[in-house]
Amino acid sequence: MASSTSLSEVAAIDILHAELGRGAFGSGWLAKRGLVGIGDDAAVLPRLPGRSVWSIDTSAEGVHFAREWLSLEQAAARATTAAISDLAAMGAKPVAALCALTLPKQISRAELRSIARGQRTIAERHACPVIGGNLCRGERVEFTTTVLGSAKRPLNRNDSRSGDEVWLVGAVGMAAAGLRVLQALKARGTGPSERALDPAQRACVRAWREPHALTQRGQLLVGRARALIDVSDGLASEAGHVARASGVCVLLNEAALRQSASPALCAVAASLLIDPLTLMLYGGEDYALLATGPARKRPTWATPIGRVVPGSGAKLQPARGGAPRRLRGGFDHLRS
Amino acid sequence: MASSTSLSEVAAIDILHAELGRGAFGSGWLAKRGLVGIGDDAAVLPRLPGRSVWSIDTSAEGVHFAREWLSLEQAAARATTAAISDLAAMGAKPVAALCALTLPKQISRAELRSIARGQRTIAERHACPVIGGNLCRGERVEFTTTVLGSAKRPLNRNDSRSGDEVWLVGAVGMAAAGLRVLQALKARGTGPSERALDPAQRACVRAWREPHALTQRGQLLVGRARALIDVSDGLASEAGHVARASGVCVLLNEAALRQSASPALCAVAASLLIDPLTLMLYGGEDYALLATGPARKRPTWATPIGRVVPGSGAKLQPARGGAPRRLRGGFDHLRS
Repeated sequence: MASSTSLSEVAAIDILHAELGRGAFGSGWLAKRGLVGIGDDAAVLPRLPGRSVWSIDTSAEGVHFAREWLSLEQAAARATTAAISDLAAMGAKPVAALCALTLPKQISRAELRSIARGQRTIAERHACPVIGGNLCRGERVEFTTTVLGSAKRPLNRNDSRSGDEVWLVGAVGMAAAGLRVLQALKARGTGPSERALDPAQRACVRAWREPHALTQRGQLLVGRARALIDVSDGLASEAGHVARASGVCVLLNEAALRQSASPALCAVAASLLIDPLTLMLYGGEDYALLATGPARKRPTWATPIGRVVPGSGAKLQPARGGAPRRLRGGFDHLRS
Repeated sequence: MASSTSLSEVAAIDILHAELGRGAFGSGWLAKRGLVGIGDDAAVLPRLPGRSVWSIDTSAEGVHFAREWLSLEQAAARATTAAISDLAAMGAKPVAALCALTLPKQISRAELRSIARGQRTIAERHACPVIGGNLCRGERVEFTTTVLGSAKRPLNRNDSRSGDEVWLVGAVGMAAAGLRVLQALKARGTGPSERALDPAQRACVRAWREPHALTQRGQLLVGRARALIDVSDGLASEAGHVARASGVCVLLNEAALRQSASPALCAVAASLLIDPLTLMLYGGEDYALLATGPARKRPTWATPIGRVVPGSGAKLQPARGGAPRRLRGGFDHLRS
């Protein structure tokens, strides 16, 4: 409605089209797979095997990321990872993505290229090209990414059964520790230069900045796990979701959780004067996977961290013994 | 990051889930069709016939709509229509939608219900339920809707051929006329009460407020049209898109266009001192369809408004004779 930007819509689409179609997705990659991408009213995909699994996820500046701690390339990569992780959480294989971008009018060509480069890096890792989208003007950068994939037998949250083991795939707590390291740096006024960080701190900051979506592990859990969810908002919250959806109690084992904490997490938590367990239970954005399934079907790369019992909600079995205590919390995307 | 809203994420999801699952989509409608909706990391769809056609579209407060002229229910319905229209523009049958909602913290339960009701009204019309989404906090209301559908043979923009007729399905210009009526009312300071509007003005305001996506007509054009696009940004702009994508010149016929203008459009344009042709060529948001195809395959409900000739770009054949003149313009979603 108001003043003009330096970048026209046509120029922006050209930049995105060129950058998203480079590298692994160049030279007919899409066409060979029957994918029709950018340049029409909608994208076209070939007939998908099995059932289609489909998600949408928004990552907004000021809510999910701040540009002082993430480059636009990293923010775009992270947004794409978060969206793809929803498919990992269903045991699905991602096929393609569309992204609706909101861009402030000051955005430059170089910044837009960085955004597309960040998306492509993650898209290549999962063979899941960004084949279309939408552009809108706004005050903040926003990525709303929809991902389509397929699964022979998608894994839901609501099939967990009493008697199942609870499995953790990937690490939890490190991303939250990394964010706190950046916040502490800022509070101390030394800025986000991060030169003084030790290797453990650097590992945690990297876990927050460059998370991985565990799509292959997710697919390998089909036929083994009964219920699956990704840990975007903290283990306590996700365990609660599985418990509610399945009508069971997900009982996490404190001793097993503490044992699974990485040395880097323990070191950083100690330096921040936080219990690593707090970060594991309530810290988000790691994109690990939480599953439940029969003990005999547990893959070697899944860590048993509890069991499913009759009852309701997520609970923690204290390491020192005594009655399980109820876990609350999680991230509220409207309030927080 | 800042203060709390009255509505938690869980409460908001409950409201959306209840309202989107009412009416036509109640009592097992989704389950019967193999659709798994709200409540997991991703939605699940059965195997779709033909090829999958997939779009994403954003409608943002202050860019695409203003709350002074549209209720939230109307804004949500309009956003859903705009998203579904992208599938009409491919000749595809919509199957389901997901919506990423951005909500200001002041949003009330009643407002959220209105949003879901607006989405459901349109979803029911196209048998295309909203089966999931995402919630994010922001300063303005935003709808980012992704729609998935199927088509045996999707119609693109780039298959138009010299010799084709150009067809218009539905009306163009009325929505732009309706918006100008509201703007004129506001400029006169009488506010948007609209009691004084005559039937022609009311018809145009309705065309802007409650547009229809022509999905059935779009599907019926498969096997008849060669190229298809929906008119979201004005006929000149869309004709230009088809011309560019197909490497042809789309020559619109002024006399035919003027003849196709509805009496309501002509009356309102006259009262606004605007040439109706200007509204037809440059006014957007009608969601009519523009197709090209062999004359013998033209359906009775399509109006011939030009022809495809060798050359480039969109041109207008003047009614008074003389050389065709080049048409420019259209809406720039980043600049406007």
